[in-house]
Amino acid sequence: MAPEEGGQISIPEIIRKKRDGETLQQEEIRYFVQTLGSGRSREGQIGAMLMAIRLKGMEPSETVVLTREIAASGTTLDWPAQWRGLLVDKHSTGGVGDKVSLPLAPALAACGCKVPMISGRGLGHTGGTLDKLESVPGFSVSQSPEQMKEILERIGCCIVEQSQYLVPADKVLYALRDVTATVDSLPLIISSILSKKMVEKLSALVLDVKFGSAALYHTLESAEQLARNLVSIGNQLGMKTAAVLSRMDEPVGGRVGNSLEVLEALQCLEGGGPGDLRELVTTLGGLLLWQSGRASSVPTGATQIGQVLDNGAALHTFQAMLQAQGVEAEVSRLLCEGTEEQRLAVLKVAGTQEELRAPEEGMEWARALPIAQVLHGLGAGRTQEGQPVNLRVGAELLVSTGKRVAKGTPWIRIHHDAPRLSQTHRETLEKALILGDVEPFTPAAKVVKILLPPGESAMPGSQRERKGVPEKVQAEGPWE
Amino acid sequence: MAPEEGGQISIPEIIRKKRDGETLQQEEIRYFVQTLGSGRSREGQIGAMLMAIRLKGMEPSETVVLTREIAASGTTLDWPAQWRGLLVDKHSTGGVGDKVSLPLAPALAACGCKVPMISGRGLGHTGGTLDKLESVPGFSVSQSPEQMKEILERIGCCIVEQSQYLVPADKVLYALRDVTATVDSLPLIISSILSKKMVEKLSALVLDVKFGSAALYHTLESAEQLARNLVSIGNQLGMKTAAVLSRMDEPVGGRVGNSLEVLEALQCLEGGGPGDLRELVTTLGGLLLWQSGRASSVPTGATQIGQVLDNGAALHTFQAMLQAQGVEAEVSRLLCEGTEEQRLAVLKVAGTQEELRAPEEGMEWARALPIAQVLHGLGAGRTQEGQPVNLRVGAELLVSTGKRVAKGTPWIRIHHDAPRLSQTHRETLEKALILGDVEPFTPAAKVVKILLPPGESAMPGSQRERKGVPEKVQAEGPWE
Repeated sequence: MAPEEGGQISIPEIIRKKRDGETLQQEEIRYFVQTLGSGRSREGQIGAMLMAIRLKGMEPSETVVLTREIAASGTTLDWPAQWRGLLVDKHSTGGVGDKVSLPLAPALAACGCKVPMISGRGLGHTGGTLDKLESVPGFSVSQSPEQMKEILERIGCCIVEQSQYLVPADKVLYALRDVTATVDSLPLIISSILSKKMVEKLSALVLDVKFGSAALYHTLESAEQLARNLVSIGNQLGMKTAAVLSRMDEPVGGRVGNSLEVLEALQCLEGGGPGDLRELVTTLGGLLLWQSGRASSVPTGATQIGQVLDNGAALHTFQAMLQAQGVEAEVSRLLCEGTEEQRLAVLKVAGTQEELRAPEEGMEWARALPIAQVLHGLGAGRTQEGQPVNLRVGAELLVSTGKRVAKGTPWIRIHHDAPRLSQTHRETLEKALILGDVEPFTPAAKVVKILLPPGESAMPGSQRERKGVPEKVQAEGPWE
Repeated sequence: MAPEEGGQISIPEIIRKKRDGETLQQEEIRYFVQTLGSGRSREGQIGAMLMAIRLKGMEPSETVVLTREIAASGTTLDWPAQWRGLLVDKHSTGGVGDKVSLPLAPALAACGCKVPMISGRGLGHTGGTLDKLESVPGFSVSQSPEQMKEILERIGCCIVEQSQYLVPADKVLYALRDVTATVDSLPLIISSILSKKMVEKLSALVLDVKFGSAALYHTLESAEQLARNLVSIGNQLGMKTAAVLSRMDEPVGGRVGNSLEVLEALQCLEGGGPGDLRELVTTLGGLLLWQSGRASSVPTGATQIGQVLDNGAALHTFQAMLQAQGVEAEVSRLLCEGTEEQRLAVLKVAGTQEELRAPEEGMEWARALPIAQVLHGLGAGRTQEGQPVNLRVGAELLVSTGKRVAKGTPWIRIHHDAPRLSQTHRETLEKALILGDVEPFTPAAKVVKILLPPGESAMPGSQRERKGVPEKVQAEGPWE
C-alpha cells in the first residue's frame, strides 16, 4: 500500500500503464527513454518494461514516439544542405551469406547518392557487415561524424560502426532484449532499426526483410507484418521507406563466412558473382534510386545499379572507400584489381579446407541454417556481445541450386582452423544438402514482394513505371 | 538469430517459456531462483521474468515450487523436535492501525505455543510491526537464529527482522516488485508471504487478508481469491494454513502511528482496548490454537486467548519478550505495569498535538486511508526501503464508530513534530470523517469470513465444533 504519487510521471507508473495495455503518452515515453543509461531507471525496471511492451504491444503512434525519442537520445549526424534528397541507406534483418551492403553502398555512391551506412556486428551465426569488412587488413570501422562527412563528401559512402554517442538508448535496450526474451517484439524491433536510421538523416530507406528457415521470421506472413509496419512508421518519421520481402532458406550467394563473403562481394562489384546476390543489390539499389528521385522507375534504377557494377564505377568507389577507411593503397589495389589468388593472399582465409561429397545423385538445394550453425561452431560468429570472431572461417558451395549433382561430387568446402571437422559438424552439414528427384530447375528469385510507402503515387515513378518491374519480381509477388 | 542452445536450461529460455504462458518445470524454477542475488542473472532479466509472471500467471504447482525454492535460498531455522506442533505464526496483508501482532504473539506464547515471528517494516503509510516495537527504547529486532531459539525456549515468542541469511531470494524479488509494477501478482505475493513462513518451520499459520478502501485489495472477492490460494498452497507446503478476511475501511482500534499503537496494544494486553482489536487477536489466536490442536474448537481457542489477555499472562509474556530483546527491566516494567502517563513518558510521543472538531452533528465513521496519508506526510511511514520513520507521529480517534458526535466535538488528535498541520493535511483529514444522518449503530465485526484448510474435518475441531463460531463471525460470513 504505497501512497499516491499525485499524478507525477514515474517509471513504475509508466510500467503499470503498459502492463495494463494502456496507450502511453508522448511525455511518458520520452521520460522512459531519457532515463535509459542515465541511472535514473534500474535495469530491472527496463526489463519489466520490455516484457510489458512485448506482451501488450504498442500503438503505431507510440512506436513513432518511441523511435523518435530513442533517435534523440544521442548525437545526430549533420550533413550539408545540398545533400538533401541524396542520403540513402538500406537495412537487412539478417541472413546467412548476406553481403549485400558491401557492393550496394559503393554502387549507390557511384550513382550519385550519399550512403552514411552505420552497420552492426550482430549475434548471428557468422559476423555482421563490420566483421566482414574487418577481414580486409587495415579497415577501420570507427569513424567520427566529421570523418564520415569528409568521406561522404569525397567518395559518397562509408560503412562504420555505431559510435557510443549515437542512439545510446538503443544500445541499452538492444543489449537487454537479447537476454530477456523480448527480441521478437514488433515495436521494439521497429524502433531499434528506425532510430539508428533516423540519426543518419536519411531521405530514403529500403529494408530487406527476410523470411524462411534461416531467417528471424520463418513465414512470409510474419515477415510481411514487420515490413508493413516498418514502411508505415518509417514514412511517418519522414523517411521515404520501402521494403522487400526476400527468401532466406539457402545462403545468399555461394560463400558464407567473413573473408569469403568479401571475395564474393568483389565478384559482384566486378559485374559477376552469384545471380541472387546481384538480384538483391540491383533491386534494393534500384528502389533507393527511384525513391530518391534519381531514377524514373525501379527497373530503371536497377539497370543503373547494374551499369555501375558492370562498368567498374562501383568497384572503384569501393576501393576508394577502403582507402578512406584506413586500408593501404597497395592492399586495396590487390583486392580490387588483383586476381583471385592475390585477393586470397590479402584476405584472412583459414588454413584447413575440407570438402564433403554428395552421398547420392539428385537435384541440389542447400539449406542455409545447418551451414551457418557449423560455421558458428567453428568460430565464425559470436554468442555474446564483444566476443571475437574468426574471420577466416567460412564455407564455399561448390554446386548450384537446381543443377544435377552426381554421387560423390564435392558439394561444399569448409575453411577452418581446427585440425578436422568433428563428426557432429559433418552430420549437421549433411542435413544442409537436399537432393531431390526432380528435373533441373531455375532457382526462384530471392525477392518475392516489394512494399512501397503509402503515398507512393506522389513519388517519381508512378503507376506507369511501377508496372515495369523486373519480371521475376512481378511473377513472384505483385507490387503493393 | 542466435544459435540453438541445445535444450540447456538458461535464463532467457525460462523467461521465454513464461512469456509464452507455458508451465515451468521444477528444475527451471529452481534454476531461476538459485541465480537470484548470485550475479548469474541480470537485474533486467529478473524484471522481465517478474512482468512475465505478472501477466501470464503461474499454475498452483508452479507457485508451490517457487515458494519452496525461495524458502530454500537461505538458512532455515532449526528447532528442537519437541516443538513440533507448537510452532505457529500469523501474517497480515497490512492495514492502518494494525497492531495485532503485538498482543497476539505473547498471548499465543502464554497459551503454550512457540511464535518465531519474523516481521517486516513495509512501505505502508505508517511503519510495520518492527517500527512499532522500536518505539520502545532499547528494543532490538535483530536476533540471530540461536538467540531466537533461546528466547522461544524461555519465553515462547519473539518478534524479529528478517536477517540477510533468511530467504535472500525473496529480498531480491521483493525489492524489484515494488519498482516494476509487479506487486499485485498472486503467485509473487503468495510465494513471498509463504516462503518467509516456511523457514520458520511452522506447524500452523493463519493469514489476515484485509479488504476495503485502505487495503491492498478493495473488494472482498479479490481478497478472497488471494486468501483461498494462500490457504491451498500453504497446506500443500505442509503448514496447516487458515485465513480470515477482515475489513480495512476504518483503522484497527483508535490509534494509528508507531508509538501510539504500542500504547493501544498494551491496553489490549491488559484485557482492555478497542473491541475490534481484541476481536482480531482472539479470532486469529483462537484459529491457531485450534489448528495446532491446543483448543478443541476455534471459539474455545478464542476464549483461551481472551483469558490470557484478561489474567495478565499475555502481558507478562510481552514484558519478558521486551527484556529478552534488549529492553531494560525498569523500562519494560514502566511500560507493562505503569500508568498511561508513565507509558507516555517511556514511548516516544510527538511534541505537538492538534485536534480537529466535527463540522456538524452526525453518526461517526472514520475512513482509514486519509488519516494514514496525512500521517505518512508527517513522517510516520516510508516511501523507500531504508528510509527512517518518525515513530512519534500518530493519530488518536476521540470518537467511536456508530456513536453520535455533536457539532464542534474534537474527533481526532494528531501528534506530530511540525509547527502546525498544513491546510492540505486538514482538508485530507476532513475527508476521513463521515457523519451520517442515521440512528446510533453497533460497528460491524472486522472478520467477515474464515477460510479453513481443505482437509479441515481431519483436524481437531470438526463439524460439530465449527458450528460454535462467535456469533458475529457466523452472522457475517459462514465457515467454509
